[in-house]
Amino acid sequence: MKNSRRGAVDPFIVMDVMEAARQAEEAGRSVIHMEVGQPGTAAPAAARDALARAMRDDPLGYTVALGLPALRKRIARLYGEWYEVDLDPARVVVTPGSSGGFILAFSALFDAGQKVALGRPGYPSYRQILRALDLQPVEIAARAENRLQLTPDDLEGVDYDGLLMASPGNPTGTMLDRDALAALIGHAQRRGASFLSDEIYHGLEYDRRAVSALEISDDVCVINSFSKYFSMTGWRVGWLVVPEANLRQVERLAQNLFICAPHAAQVAALAAMDATDELEANRAVYACNRALMIDGLPRAGFDRIAPPDGAFYVYADVSHLTDDSRAFARQILDEAGVAVTPGLDFDPDRGAGTLRFSYARASADIEEGLARLARFMQARRET
Amino acid sequence: MKNSRRGAVDPFIVMDVMEAARQAEEAGRSVIHMEVGQPGTAAPAAARDALARAMRDDPLGYTVALGLPALRKRIARLYGEWYEVDLDPARVVVTPGSSGGFILAFSALFDAGQKVALGRPGYPSYRQILRALDLQPVEIAARAENRLQLTPDDLEGVDYDGLLMASPGNPTGTMLDRDALAALIGHAQRRGASFLSDEIYHGLEYDRRAVSALEISDDVCVINSFSKYFSMTGWRVGWLVVPEANLRQVERLAQNLFICAPHAAQVAALAAMDATDELEANRAVYACNRALMIDGLPRAGFDRIAPPDGAFYVYADVSHLTDDSRAFARQILDEAGVAVTPGLDFDPDRGAGTLRFSYARASADIEEGLARLARFMQARRET
Repeated sequence: MKNSRRGAVDPFIVMDVMEAARQAEEAGRSVIHMEVGQPGTAAPAAARDALARAMRDDPLGYTVALGLPALRKRIARLYGEWYEVDLDPARVVVTPGSSGGFILAFSALFDAGQKVALGRPGYPSYRQILRALDLQPVEIAARAENRLQLTPDDLEGVDYDGLLMASPGNPTGTMLDRDALAALIGHAQRRGASFLSDEIYHGLEYDRRAVSALEISDDVCVINSFSKYFSMTGWRVGWLVVPEANLRQVERLAQNLFICAPHAAQVAALAAMDATDELEANRAVYACNRALMIDGLPRAGFDRIAPPDGAFYVYADVSHLTDDSRAFARQILDEAGVAVTPGLDFDPDRGAGTLRFSYARASADIEEGLARLARFMQARRET
Repeated sequence: MKNSRRGAVDPFIVMDVMEAARQAEEAGRSVIHMEVGQPGTAAPAAARDALARAMRDDPLGYTVALGLPALRKRIARLYGEWYEVDLDPARVVVTPGSSGGFILAFSALFDAGQKVALGRPGYPSYRQILRALDLQPVEIAARAENRLQLTPDDLEGVDYDGLLMASPGNPTGTMLDRDALAALIGHAQRRGASFLSDEIYHGLEYDRRAVSALEISDDVCVINSFSKYFSMTGWRVGWLVVPEANLRQVERLAQNLFICAPHAAQVAALAAMDATDELEANRAVYACNRALMIDGLPRAGFDRIAPPDGAFYVYADVSHLTDDSRAFARQILDEAGVAVTPGLDFDPDRGAGTLRFSYARASADIEEGLARLARFMQARRET
């Protein structure tokens, strides 16, 4: 059968790295994984216990499309706890991961052909989901002096119907402060465009709290997930917060597109939200790893980095070392035994000169990886 | 923020019934649920046990986009067991429910504006998902003499890029035999259109096996799910079988649109596939319920039905009793204490004169429901 044109999305270049790493491990070599975008930890024990109990007592059939009422209420409460925002649980929509949240938000807000502006570098699936839904991603190069986040200046003269921002961002981990975020929301609202805020890395901050778009305006769409701070990637459960005016449309679309988010994952997610000790212990590991990275990467020779405010990534400019990040990543894997991600997935233009290092794994792995990177760079300088 | 036009999908009328039933129960009234589209049973015990074990040993992070290799292999084996089809596991794609399968298949195969033909009555989300993806559903009234399944005659002169069929169908439960299915596949293939076969109710047949489109051609897309026969609705796990020529495109779309199907659900689904005794016991209950319905509905006065071959629905023509199935369903709920679904969700034209009765619950409920329906119709005749 014929393939559609809109379905012809780009392959993930990181998949080649992961496959090469797998082959190296199969051949008996040791690989430190700095390419992965997910926690190595399981869902909190309390979450797994709650599900084990529910599996005994409840057939776990479909939930209502917007999600378990108790979970929506608990998510609304999180906005009070984290941001001092009083949020109506009716505006919370439980989704099949943030992926489901994007599909839902994009199809509820935009018609075919409309333009959604977003910064480069950024999460590659943004543009692929947009294309699959016949929308036009308008990617704008973010500037290094703005720590690779967009500013209203970057948007001057740009035609767009929606603006999508992420803070902390992937691959950079850099955040927008309140004024910077408010300026972008204002820019979108003045032109009647929708504003979407990807807050999937909230909770994983180290010096200061991330700002939610909901602290600034009710007329925004927030996308979040249990995958990162709550350590539940494979469970595929996330949430949207939508303006009241969009709620009915989002509900009907959710009924038809997904029926509901996975019931088991919703039960686990509700319990995860109160597993503060375990989640904060995970975060303490990331904080330690981050300190190791900020110290170790420059000492190894990767010194063109913007120290990350959140998430578990460091994005390094390596354009003085290579003009082919894909080959460079391959060389690092082969010679140093460290898997890293070439920047091309995040920025097809400038990514040939960048690498993303993830520090989501155990601290001992991070130390070993940094030592390997230092030896590799030392050997490279000596040849 | 502005709502999109394509997101303006129709509400489900069954939701009004479900809400009215909930209110009646809250007010202390007894309601027999013949409106639900899902098993009342849980996932098989072996599936829940497998997940309980996995939760102790495995962080259950993302799986690869196409799904756990062991699950894909096991699904391929099912095609040997059920249909004597030798299927390459590489063509099996694990999806977040059949809902995810539809999103994936439609976006991989069709560009905005293309036409997908399907029969009325049918599962209402088909047309809503198509619209949300900017595709044009071309709905064709199926004829009662064909037991509400389309035939090639119905497609003469119809312009379409894809043809979507379901056997057993929802709401009718009627099946296409091998020749009828082959004729439809041939019609689509001769005009270069894609053929999609929704086989979600396979396994729930009572007199003869359902025929898979894969028995007839490799150049078709099959959509299936663990929701019905495997009793795992809320787990959101299903699968696609796609032609080899579409596999790479489907894989890249799956990576971007979903990342993966829920890992926990995949673990449970794999174990469910060998829980034959429990699944066949569930089916025996449906078989008993079906016999009760085929006997009891006509005796109550609902005698214009096509005896269902599969699934757990009976679709009744009540156009001699009402021209407003919505009001009639409401009256049945209020006066008989039985929740049923007006046909309007499945057929916006003729559904004002039809009702869908589900027999997915316990046999005692079905007996009680039929008794209530008989008393209600008796009282109605006497007034």
